[in-house]
Amino acid sequence: MNRYVAVVGPGEGATRLEVRLADEIGQRLAENNVVVVTGGLAGVMAAAARGARRAGGQTVGLLPGLDRAAADAGVTMAIPTGLGELRNALVVNSADGLIAVGGSWGTLSEIAFARRADLPVVSVCGWTVRDHNGNQVEVSTADSAEKAVTLLLGQLPRPA
Amino acid sequence: MNRYVAVVGPGEGATRLEVRLADEIGQRLAENNVVVVTGGLAGVMAAAARGARRAGGQTVGLLPGLDRAAADAGVTMAIPTGLGELRNALVVNSADGLIAVGGSWGTLSEIAFARRADLPVVSVCGWTVRDHNGNQVEVSTADSAEKAVTLLLGQLPRPA
Amino acid sequence: MNRYVAVVGPGEGATRLEVRLADEIGQRLAENNVVVVTGGLAGVMAAAARGARRAGGQTVGLLPGLDRAAADAGVTMAIPTGLGELRNALVVNSADGLIAVGGSWGTLSEIAFARRADLPVVSVCGWTVRDHNGNQVEVSTADSAEKAVTLLLGQLPRPA
Amino acid sequence: MNRYVAVVGPGEGATRLEVRLADEIGQRLAENNVVVVTGGLAGVMAAAARGARRAGGQTVGLLPGLDRAAADAGVTMAIPTGLGELRNALVVNSADGLIAVGGSWGTLSEIAFARRADLPVVSVCGWTVRDHNGNQVEVSTADSAEKAVTLLLGQLPRPA
Repeated sequence: MNRYVAVVGPGEGATRLEVRLADEIGQRLAENNVVVVTGGLAGVMAAAARGARRAGGQTVGLLPGLDRAAADAGVTMAIPTGLGELRNALVVNSADGLIAVGGSWGTLSEIAFARRADLPVVSVCGWTVRDHNGNQVEVSTADSAEKAVTLLLGQLPRPA
Repeated sequence: MNRYVAVVGPGEGATRLEVRLADEIGQRLAENNVVVVTGGLAGVMAAAARGARRAGGQTVGLLPGLDRAAADAGVTMAIPTGLGELRNALVVNSADGLIAVGGSWGTLSEIAFARRADLPVVSVCGWTVRDHNGNQVEVSTADSAEKAVTLLLGQLPRPA
Repeated sequence: MNRYVAVVGPGEGATRLEVRLADEIGQRLAENNVVVVTGGLAGVMAAAARGARRAGGQTVGLLPGLDRAAADAGVTMAIPTGLGELRNALVVNSADGLIAVGGSWGTLSEIAFARRADLPVVSVCGWTVRDHNGNQVEVSTADSAEKAVTLLLGQLPRPA
Repeated sequence: MNRYVAVVGPGEGATRLEVRLADEIGQRLAENNVVVVTGGLAGVMAAAARGARRAGGQTVGLLPGLDRAAADAGVTMAIPTGLGELRNALVVNSADGLIAVGGSWGTLSEIAFARRADLPVVSVCGWTVRDHNGNQVEVSTADSAEKAVTLLLGQLPRPA
């Protein structure tokens, strides 16, 4: 059975660096036969889907609305959910691990859900979280697409 | 963009006839480049996925639980939702039309959701619904896999 | 602990008879210390909430959208869900039993979900369902508000 | 119409201080005629419900599972959702603002969802979030129950 990794991050507001990173992450995941799951829209989501598609990979986009046509063209399988922002939790439920590129409240909701469910998470250029005593709460970080993918895949169970 | 059709019906309790019909429906949908969406489990769902896969098609299984391994092997893309029976509504939201094979309360919930959303529905060997005056409430019916697929595809918008 | 009963049925399209029945059902449920759960909008939902409120009862309205102000004024507790039509399944999950007044596809989705979950259901002036052999599929029916409430409460476990 | 505030925080793992704060926050919200929304379980959730109930207030508990009996006794209205951890997003959708007591991944998912939806959030003894440049991402904080409630209510629209 395939492994599924969600690539999450800002949509419209993504920076050029984040888009470039997400594109390469999508490509590298696809080269490792990983299905790329995204929220189906622009920015980091679109870039990850595009990179995966270029490498011949499969991508699923879980859309907040009911209109399939809202999906970015890179997505090979577009699923309108009608769940609004709750679909962030569905993105997490559908994945075996998460790579977050950049920071936003939506992205943080996905990291938090994933950590709550004990899924492996790697964050690139993202927000960091400190507890009440000022200690950083553990999320793996990477500073390149290559390292992010290697780090995450190392934490996933082997494909059956 | 591809068209997506959900094939729904009983799981474990499906009859041999329902399984045979679902298999052929899945195959015929795939031959028409339609992505087959199912609830990902046994019976009618598994048969539709298997038929589609045999024809080289794509299938998505939207699972009620959180364990991807619960998906039938015919499913090419298995999405654990963690939504329980609410995933029936997600199956409908993700589809452009619905073919129901056989009858059960779960199947009827999907038909009702689809009609509520004005999606085309074709029912094969299924339950029928009468209003308070005893008049049948309109759902298209077919008595073969071939007719079901032709009837449903005729009601979908052309692919872009 | 209180018992919770969902009263479901058409919104804007409800007939005068359905509204009158729903109002009395809401009142009788409240007189039996039952919390009335509805979809929070007009028609049967509003009438059931109004009847329950008049009798000093509690009502929860689970709204499809995100705007609490869309709730009918009879609802004592209005919960915007943002789930769209999926909130029909949430109405069922939140209830111990269901009384359906009148027929519509949305109403049928709630009956089907409830029967799928083995909740007691009583239908008044509603649609009926027949299996592939023409036999009626069992849902209790009643022809008055009083009988509907008595019939449903008789099928619920006693309050603790 | 009433105002609704979600009080969120750790369940079983809550500290004695967090429980004491949540209890007083629940009480003060109820004294201001605010409906208290929680996730319905133990720890911070139970304490907020208990405090609100003591002050004669209304509380709604949105449970992850399907069993109403799992709700803490302080909850006046217990709603089983069957959504699992997705119910965190429902807690946010149902509220006009959020007070978080203490830190956990589940709690952070609720803060992130609320900020994503532009709801006012006040955090007490909670985790803090820094962006990629090390700057703190803005969430209001308070160091007492009284200040938390005053600060949050000041950011809500007046009741109609």
